[in-house]
Amino acid sequence: MAIIYLDNAASTWPKPPTVKEMMAEVIEDFAANPGRGGHTLAMKASKTVFRTRVQLSRLFGIQNPNNLFFYLNATQALNQAIKGFLKPGDHVISSSVEHNSVRRPLEYMRKTSGVEVTFVGPRADHLFHVEDFKQVIQPNTRLLVVSHASNLTGVILPIAELGALAKEHGISLLVDASQSAGVLPIHVEEMNIDMLAFPGHKGLYGPQGTGALYVHNDIDLEPLIHGGTGSQSEAIDQPTTRPDRYESGTVNTVGLAGLLAGVTYVMEKGVEQIRQHEWELVKKTISALGEIPGVEVYGPGIQTERVAVVSFNVAGVDASEVSFILDQQYGIATRSGYHCTPLGHQTAGTEQRGAVRASYGIFNTDKDVEALIQAVREIASAFV
Amino acid sequence: MAIIYLDNAASTWPKPPTVKEMMAEVIEDFAANPGRGGHTLAMKASKTVFRTRVQLSRLFGIQNPNNLFFYLNATQALNQAIKGFLKPGDHVISSSVEHNSVRRPLEYMRKTSGVEVTFVGPRADHLFHVEDFKQVIQPNTRLLVVSHASNLTGVILPIAELGALAKEHGISLLVDASQSAGVLPIHVEEMNIDMLAFPGHKGLYGPQGTGALYVHNDIDLEPLIHGGTGSQSEAIDQPTTRPDRYESGTVNTVGLAGLLAGVTYVMEKGVEQIRQHEWELVKKTISALGEIPGVEVYGPGIQTERVAVVSFNVAGVDASEVSFILDQQYGIATRSGYHCTPLGHQTAGTEQRGAVRASYGIFNTDKDVEALIQAVREIASAFV
Repeated sequence: MAIIYLDNAASTWPKPPTVKEMMAEVIEDFAANPGRGGHTLAMKASKTVFRTRVQLSRLFGIQNPNNLFFYLNATQALNQAIKGFLKPGDHVISSSVEHNSVRRPLEYMRKTSGVEVTFVGPRADHLFHVEDFKQVIQPNTRLLVVSHASNLTGVILPIAELGALAKEHGISLLVDASQSAGVLPIHVEEMNIDMLAFPGHKGLYGPQGTGALYVHNDIDLEPLIHGGTGSQSEAIDQPTTRPDRYESGTVNTVGLAGLLAGVTYVMEKGVEQIRQHEWELVKKTISALGEIPGVEVYGPGIQTERVAVVSFNVAGVDASEVSFILDQQYGIATRSGYHCTPLGHQTAGTEQRGAVRASYGIFNTDKDVEALIQAVREIASAFV
Repeated sequence: MAIIYLDNAASTWPKPPTVKEMMAEVIEDFAANPGRGGHTLAMKASKTVFRTRVQLSRLFGIQNPNNLFFYLNATQALNQAIKGFLKPGDHVISSSVEHNSVRRPLEYMRKTSGVEVTFVGPRADHLFHVEDFKQVIQPNTRLLVVSHASNLTGVILPIAELGALAKEHGISLLVDASQSAGVLPIHVEEMNIDMLAFPGHKGLYGPQGTGALYVHNDIDLEPLIHGGTGSQSEAIDQPTTRPDRYESGTVNTVGLAGLLAGVTYVMEKGVEQIRQHEWELVKKTISALGEIPGVEVYGPGIQTERVAVVSFNVAGVDASEVSFILDQQYGIATRSGYHCTPLGHQTAGTEQRGAVRASYGIFNTDKDVEALIQAVREIASAFV
């Protein structure tokens, strides 16, 4: 049975063929340690990592590629940003659709470092309004941390407007672009994004093991990880130069080479074209699922643009059972459960049961949507 | 010009062909997000990661594979161990050959968390003696952190004896196996190693982007990174189950699959056989370099076993220049500079000039050694 992969919000698959090719080339030809030696192979490795930095900077409007740091995943990037930025007495504003990669570091800082946190929710229209964020600003508010888009309902937050608000109040803005990098336009300068965290293996079509954090020149984070950087080796303190200060230990050269291929593919296709393609699939899914008796779809309707995730439940059936049947009987890979966003579920009203999530990528087609709809229709008619 | 790669202590190259094959298979066939969905592809990814955990556990005598956690590199593993373990008022004993991945986190803890650190050096015989560690134990000594082997001189530390000492005094032992994993026998139970950090891309022949930390059941570290784990999603606190508690965010599935191939290759070859092969190359190198006028080799002579690194200088020539000429004129990749170990250089007496380092792997041959010797002989005769 051919697999219909609708779990792209967790990790995109398949990847463009160039990703595998690039990784194979690197591991075969020059997987030496970048920045850890002046010899030819190390220079080649170093150059590959730098090219990835440059390409990502182009995509996101980052002026200096050395302000972009590589990590294992977006979670580490977010931890570095949050824990490296906040100080005792600070107040943070965040949203109610945050993933645990934002929520848990914030809770940790609240408990251990005397940081105050306020979570802002959406209104009845499922949308987030800038005024609601403005209203909770305090004199000690130093950071605004928001997801660009919910990984549960796909709702998009008004980043540019939040950036303007943050700037006006001297607050730094950290954006979690886990669900938006590669599918929504992002320009850190124009949107006043001070820090941007994103994974390499989702909308940028790189491999797992890659994530990154952009940090504006003017922000000096305390490094979360200390170690060898290949520079200022003789100093016992962490170097101050970027990106070295925030990239201790050997980077994932082969993974970053794959990410270079992925992001290049995305830029050649065009973010707007990818978005348009995925949006058509989402509209079709929401409309058709909504017509099936007993099926409830979460989040706003098709009049409101969202990223390519659609969460739903079938009355009387566990989300995990629906997902299991889709996988085993229909070969359709979706995800069920809580999607690492407890607040998001409270917001959507699904905290008692989780939800089934279908999420699309660039390689999904109308046929995939039709297969999902047909399968859910059959499941619903068997149970409802 | 064919490249003679003698920088294996920074990253081994080439890798066994199975590493590339395994990575290509994973990225092509099922690079879904492990543990983030119950569907078939995610289960396959999850199984691959678990198999890697099991294989590494077999190699190192780890009883429960879930006590092994995966990171971007050994540096992150060491940071998690050191910062997650130490509390204000603790005293740590370490060695003078530590890499910056140990030294810098310790210095950071000293400055920010009221931790005391004592570094123990070698004696005139270049070796570390257990009694010298014993003598600096204090009532508040809680942790002993040592490299298994120096990345500069190759000197091997007496881990089993240090483990016995630590156990006797109720001190926990953290071993940095960056230069030993895959080339020296390691058994965490028999050697009383409480925590073991190692990279995947050196002696285990996996790709970069992989590192791991073993932590004994009885040790509860504070997590350094908080985030989504695919488990207990609904809780705002980090889960307590292992490995989830220490593995937030998506792991490097494709890299870990490559590591599985690498460590399997090592186990099939046999650690002792690999070690014997490398030791022959090292002996030959030390003997021959020592006979070249103007060449100084650091560390103990061939009567003392070491891991496969040989550091040296040519009188009157910068280490970086020697390394550059070796690369450009002879196609021999070595590394020059400080090797991220300032204390190690003080110990070796090379803190003013660094050193050239040649380091061997399983794929190096006698011919590689001969090429290096011939090249150094020519360089030395031109300058001395």
